[in-house]
Order: sequence, then structure tokens, then C-alpha cells
Amino acid sequence: MISDEVLDEVRALLAEREELGIRGLADRLGTADWADLVPRLDDDEVVALLANLPAEEIPELLEELEPEQTASVLHVLGRDKAADLLERMDPDDATDVLAEFDDDEAERLLQAMEPDDAAEIRELLPYPPDTAGGRMTPAFVAIAPDVRADDAIVMLRLVAEEAETIYYVYVLDAAERLLGVLSLHNLVLTRPDTPVSEVMVADPFRVRADTDQETAARLLTDNNLLALPVVDEHDKLLGIITQDDVADVLEEEATEDIERLGGSQPLDMPYRLASVPLLVRRRVGWLLFLFFAGLLTTQVLVSFETRLAEIQALTLFIPLIIGIGGNVGSQTVTTLVRAIAIGEVELRDVGWVLVKELSVGLLIGLLLGIAGFVRGGLSSGTQVGIVVGATIMAITVWSAAVAAVLPLVLRRLGADPAVVSAPFITTLVDATGLLIYLTVAGVVLQQV
Amino acid sequence: MISDEVLDEVRALLAEREELGIRGLADRLGTADWADLVPRLDDDEVVALLANLPAEEIPELLEELEPEQTASVLHVLGRDKAADLLERMDPDDATDVLAEFDDDEAERLLQAMEPDDAAEIRELLPYPPDTAGGRMTPAFVAIAPDVRADDAIVMLRLVAEEAETIYYVYVLDAAERLLGVLSLHNLVLTRPDTPVSEVMVADPFRVRADTDQETAARLLTDNNLLALPVVDEHDKLLGIITQDDVADVLEEEATEDIERLGGSQPLDMPYRLASVPLLVRRRVGWLLFLFFAGLLTTQVLVSFETRLAEIQALTLFIPLIIGIGGNVGSQTVTTLVRAIAIGEVELRDVGWVLVKELSVGLLIGLLLGIAGFVRGGLSSGTQVGIVVGATIMAITVWSAAVAAVLPLVLRRLGADPAVVSAPFITTLVDATGLLIYLTVAGVVLQQV
Repeated sequence: MISDEVLDEVRALLAEREELGIRGLADRLGTADWADLVPRLDDDEVVALLANLPAEEIPELLEELEPEQTASVLHVLGRDKAADLLERMDPDDATDVLAEFDDDEAERLLQAMEPDDAAEIRELLPYPPDTAGGRMTPAFVAIAPDVRADDAIVMLRLVAEEAETIYYVYVLDAAERLLGVLSLHNLVLTRPDTPVSEVMVADPFRVRADTDQETAARLLTDNNLLALPVVDEHDKLLGIITQDDVADVLEEEATEDIERLGGSQPLDMPYRLASVPLLVRRRVGWLLFLFFAGLLTTQVLVSFETRLAEIQALTLFIPLIIGIGGNVGSQTVTTLVRAIAIGEVELRDVGWVLVKELSVGLLIGLLLGIAGFVRGGLSSGTQVGIVVGATIMAITVWSAAVAAVLPLVLRRLGADPAVVSAPFITTLVDATGLLIYLTVAGVVLQQV
Repeated sequence: MISDEVLDEVRALLAEREELGIRGLADRLGTADWADLVPRLDDDEVVALLANLPAEEIPELLEELEPEQTASVLHVLGRDKAADLLERMDPDDATDVLAEFDDDEAERLLQAMEPDDAAEIRELLPYPPDTAGGRMTPAFVAIAPDVRADDAIVMLRLVAEEAETIYYVYVLDAAERLLGVLSLHNLVLTRPDTPVSEVMVADPFRVRADTDQETAARLLTDNNLLALPVVDEHDKLLGIITQDDVADVLEEEATEDIERLGGSQPLDMPYRLASVPLLVRRRVGWLLFLFFAGLLTTQVLVSFETRLAEIQALTLFIPLIIGIGGNVGSQTVTTLVRAIAIGEVELRDVGWVLVKELSVGLLIGLLLGIAGFVRGGLSSGTQVGIVVGATIMAITVWSAAVAAVLPLVLRRLGADPAVVSAPFITTLVDATGLLIYLTVAGVVLQQV
């Protein structure tokens, strides 16, 4: 994050078109700072910045921005300049930016680009951004199996500028099918006249282009790779996913899970760029569903209306009791959904998970139940105390069990387990918890 | 994840001490599968597995396990065998494992190890595991500034086996202070007789050993580095953090945030390894706090007891109304806490964040308020309908505002914003929401 002082200084430079000062910015600011700076400038300032920065800095700057931000910067700059810049970005990043334009404008931009660069992007455009194909770059280094190690190094020197990584070299057959991979490490440490087919790792890890980006990222990171090849259905090498994509993918997926657990649909874009209508759309669906589910609580209370009227004290503890159920459910469901997301727990584990959560629920229920008994007893007599305490125990165990089992079952049914959000469990436990409360009250106070 | 069939087959091999079959396992299972397999075996089976696996596979297996798992495996194997294996693990991983033993046993294990290996671990032990120092490995490659590029490559060949990465070579002065970094990439592509000081990147990114691991991981990934040097207060190079640590760090931090948002303290270990008493300890603190905070709802209801007795219908909508407040608060707080965690939003943004969330709250409140008016009106007459509708609107806006501002303020006060969990906001909105509800009821029904 850049400080407010730096921002003010940059703005002053831009306002005065201080060419040298603006050029100097590229040296003073880290690449990550651009993503922070650019959204805080207005359109004129962005144009002034891009007009004065050294040409070679600009693609690097654009790659640090979110695709939405880059698209709006390009929009300000006009089509020819935009096409120029797109040519100089990494093709995978340029593709994400083009996907932000409507189809007609994207097509016009592609036609304004050099045919070679445009062709690379056209190949990437069909893959959804959250798949391996959408993440990959075609800028890999490939050689034939009969090349010698020293010749391979010479070839590497020639393409070093263009390639996304030269630490891995892919060995392909005549039909561009993936035969093996060599690390620069291997190439440097091997005898110069060895054919690469002898030192390559044959049949390396790879993913199909339609593989989910999270699966690809985990394969890459679990096996300590620097890059992962992406192939089509005939095993033809299409591109590679590199280590620096992994952090982005994992962050994106964690953000989605967190948003779902909080009870909204994922924004799929940075919060600061999300408009009010978008935020409403992402949140209102679940809220309406939960509103209607919440109406069940009203039904439960209507059906016990007489009992509530006779024993006023029962009403006093309703929010406390259902609140505890919601809290326990929320703790349990977030822990479980996360454990499922990182592959630690799956449906076959439902047995021990349930035993574990029931034990935890029992112990916590005992403690909170005693506290509830004391509080209820103090204000409304022993009998109400017993009702409150016993209900809290029962709700705690019930809530832990539901929150432990539901995400696993949903996962089994093919749904995303994060659909069982904290608000979902809370609402479910609200209605069922009231039923438990008023039934226990009936039994203890002999009014069934 | 390995399938149940594979597990059964492995168990059969182990039961029969099928030496060849067990040896073959290392080829059939990916390294990531070990982490899944080992915890599902009992102690005898683990011993049989380690006794029969080729010696060179074992450290690799142990590195894939969680430190707690490795520690318990080592415990089963006995001290001498354990010391042997610790020597052959990467020193940073071995340090994490040793930290799981009590101090006396750790010391005995260190004394049973080769002095060199033990010394490396002793240097790493003082750094907490969630700092750059705790994550780093001392297995980096360092050279003096006057070495020639071709000699550097020769040196690399000698240490290639030991080093964690040979893609970066660090250039140090006589006092081991960090002068610059060279990539293998640069070394290979430069003229053989160039001194490394001419091709190195001078004054590279670095972190101090006490830097938070998340800060280090983000610096590494934001600047697309393969490794990040870790230095002491005199700029002496202590170790490096490599790309493959980034995914672990980011996952760990996301898991912590998710657990906090759900209302528990982070487990700091995999769910499947967490015992029931540990789970209780991590959850019960917040639950007790929320229990006492929840007692406020009882206070509010007590002070409005007469009004509730007179207008029975009011009670029916209590869970529905406070439920909506909790749901809106939960959505908002999770989105905000995540945006703060990934550095998108900070305190200076409180203005536009509040405007955004108030706008969202108003729009959603209007919609849910109308739904509440209809439901309340249908069952209990227009006046109650107005009370329910107006309260839902007010609570939605209030809840969104509180959930937007609190995490930012807490962050400012130096607390972790994820302390404002979904249950925390829900409980806060429960009590204040009831106050709003019964006050609105007083005004509309003219019973103030």
C-alpha cells in the first residue's frame, strides 16, 4: 500500500506533467504498488501517467492491475494505443483483459493488434478464466527429443526474453504431444552431448485445459513444481501454468469460500470494484431464502402461543437460546467447510467427524447449560432454569451435529459444501431450536 | 486422496511384511498421498512401512506429513532411528518437527544427531513457526562477489544436491551480508568470464527473520520471485523462503481467518489431528463471551415485558427479525474482513465503505421490509405489519453499518479484524435489534 503522502506527490507530478518525475516513479514504486495507485487516480491522471512512463514499464504496470481495472484504463487510452499495449502484455493476462470488453469491441481490438499476438489470444479466449486453460500461458519453451543438452541451452538463450519461464523445457513429439520435461537445473548439470530425451523426466504431471484452476494449483504446489503443463484431449501441449499463478488461484478460491460461508454469492471481483447493485444482487438471493426459512420460527411460535402467554418468562430466553445454537453451528460449519475445501475431510469421514463434534457439543453444552440454568433459575425460578439449561444442552449438541453432517452430505450430492453458510445453519437451528425449547418447556412444566 | 481400495491393499502388504510390494509403494503413490495414507495406519503398520521403504524415500515421506504426524511417527521409531531421519530431512522441516517434542526430549534428539545437522536446527529453533525465520531454510547457495559466472556454475554443480533451490545464488560480502542475487537464468545466459557482481541484481528484496510469514509470502509472490532472502538485524543472510512455502502460508492464513470468522480461535493444526479437548478449548472462550453478551437480549426483553404481554403478536416475530439482522451482518463482515486481510481495504477507506454498505443495506432493507410488512400484516393486522416492516428496514441498515465499520476500527486499534466474527456481529445485532424493534413498536402502537 502506498501512503497518502506518496499519492499526493504523484498527483502533483501528474497535474504538472512533470515528465522526469513521472519517469522516475517506475523506479521508486514496486510493481505491486501500481495496483494500489492506479484505481485512486482519475481518468486524466491515468492518461498522463501512461503518456509519460517509459514504454517498457507499461505492460508490467497493467499486469499488476485487475483485468477490470486494465480494461477501463485501455478504454480511456483509445483503441490503437490499447491494441499496442495488449500486444506487449503476457497473452494470458491480455486474454483476461479482453474478456472484460463486449464481444464487438474485443473483436475490433484483436483486429487492431499484430496478427501473431491476436492469434495467441484467440486460442486462449475459449477457456473460462477459472480453468487451467484460462490460467495458462502459451509462452513455454519446447524442443524435440533428439536435441543435445548444450544445443538446448543455446536455444534457451534465443527465447529467454519471450518465455514465461526458462526453468522448465518441454520435450514434444512431432505432433506436439508432451513426452517429458527438463529443468534448467538438469540441463546445466548434465554432460553437454547428452540428448535431452535421456535426461528428461518422462510422462510428467499435466492437466487437461478444462481442469478446475484450484485442482491444477494444488497439483503444482503439492508436487513442488515451478510450472505445470496444460494439454488438450490428444495430449498436445497447449500452455503452462506457473508458480506465480498458484498464489492468485488459492487466494481467489479462499475469498470465494469465505464469501459463501458468510452467506453471499462470491463477488468474483475485488470488493473495491464491486458496485452497489452488484453487491445487492450477490446478497439478496440468500437473504430472501433465509427470510422465508426464518418464517418457520414464526410458525413454531404461533403453534405454542398459549404456552408462551401462560409462562411469560419463556419469551425472555428465546434470543439467548437460539443465539447459542447459531454460534455453535457457525463455529462447526466454518471449520468443517474449510477442512473439506483443503481436502482434509470427505464423506467417508462422516463417522468420526460426527463422533468428534458430538463429543465437543456435549462438553460445551454441559458448560453452557449450567450457565443457562443459573441465569434462568435466578430470574424465573428453578423450573424455568431447568428448561433453559436443558434446552441449551440439547441445542448445542443438535447444532454441532447438523453443522458437521450437512456440508459433507452436500458435498456428496455434488453441491459446494460452502453453500451451508453460517447464516444457513443459524436459520435452520433457529426454527428447530425453538421447537426443542418449547417442547422441553412443555415436558418440564407439565403443560404438554 | 487415496481410495479405500488402495488403503486396504497397503494394509494387506504391511500385515504380511511384503517387502517388495512395500518398496513398490514409493513409485505408485505421489508424495502428496503419504500425508493421506500415514494417519490412517496404526503404529505397527507405520513401523512396518518405514522398515521396508527404501531409505531415500523416507525423508521425503516425512516432509509431506504435518509436523505433529511426523513427531508421532518418530516417537514410535525410537530415538536413534528418529535422529537419523531428522538428519536427512530439510532443516526447516526438521525444526518444525522438533518443536513438537518437549524441550528435554528435543535436546536428547539433537544430541543423538550429527553435530553439523543439529547445529543447523539449533539456529532455526528460536524463530516462531509463523515468522519468516520459522519458515526459512538455511540451505541456500552463496558466493563471493568476485567469482566468475562459469566458476559459479561449477560450484553450483557441487552443491546442487544439498541446496533447496539452485535457481538463485546469493552474493555475500566477507561478513555474510547480502549484496545481491543472481538467477541461474542470468548465470547461464551471461558471458562465462563475467564476475558475478556485474550481473547480479544488487540490493534485492529481503525480509528480517521476525517478519510475519504472511507479509513475506506476499512480498515473494507479488514480485514473482522464486525465493526470498531472510536476514538478521545486521543484514547477514540467515536463510531463504522458497516459492513452495507460499501456498502453505497463504492456506494456513486463510484457514485461520475462516476459523476466526466462524467464531472460534484458530486450531493451528489440521482438523483431523485436533483432539476433542483442543476443539473445546478453541471454541468455548468465544461461546462464553457470546453467552454473556447474549444475556443483554434477556435484559432488553425484561425491560419491555409489559409491552410484550399486552401485544402477544410482537413475540412471534422476534426470531425472524433478529435473524435477518444477523444474516446481513454476517454477509457484510465476512466480505469486509476478507478485503482487509488481502490488503484491499484499510481504515482510510472507511468513508466509501460505509457509503457503499449503507446503500446496499437500504436497498436490501427496503425489499425485506416490504416482505416483513406483508407477513406481519397478514397474521396480526396492519399496525404490527408496519412495526415488523419498519424494524426490518432499520435493522438491515444498522447491521450493515456496524459490520462494515467495526472490522476497520479494530484493525486500526491493532486487533485482528477477524475477531469481529459472524457470531459476534449476530449477537451484537440481537440485543440492539430487539431494542430497535420494541422501540419502533412503542412509537407505532403509541404505547411509549
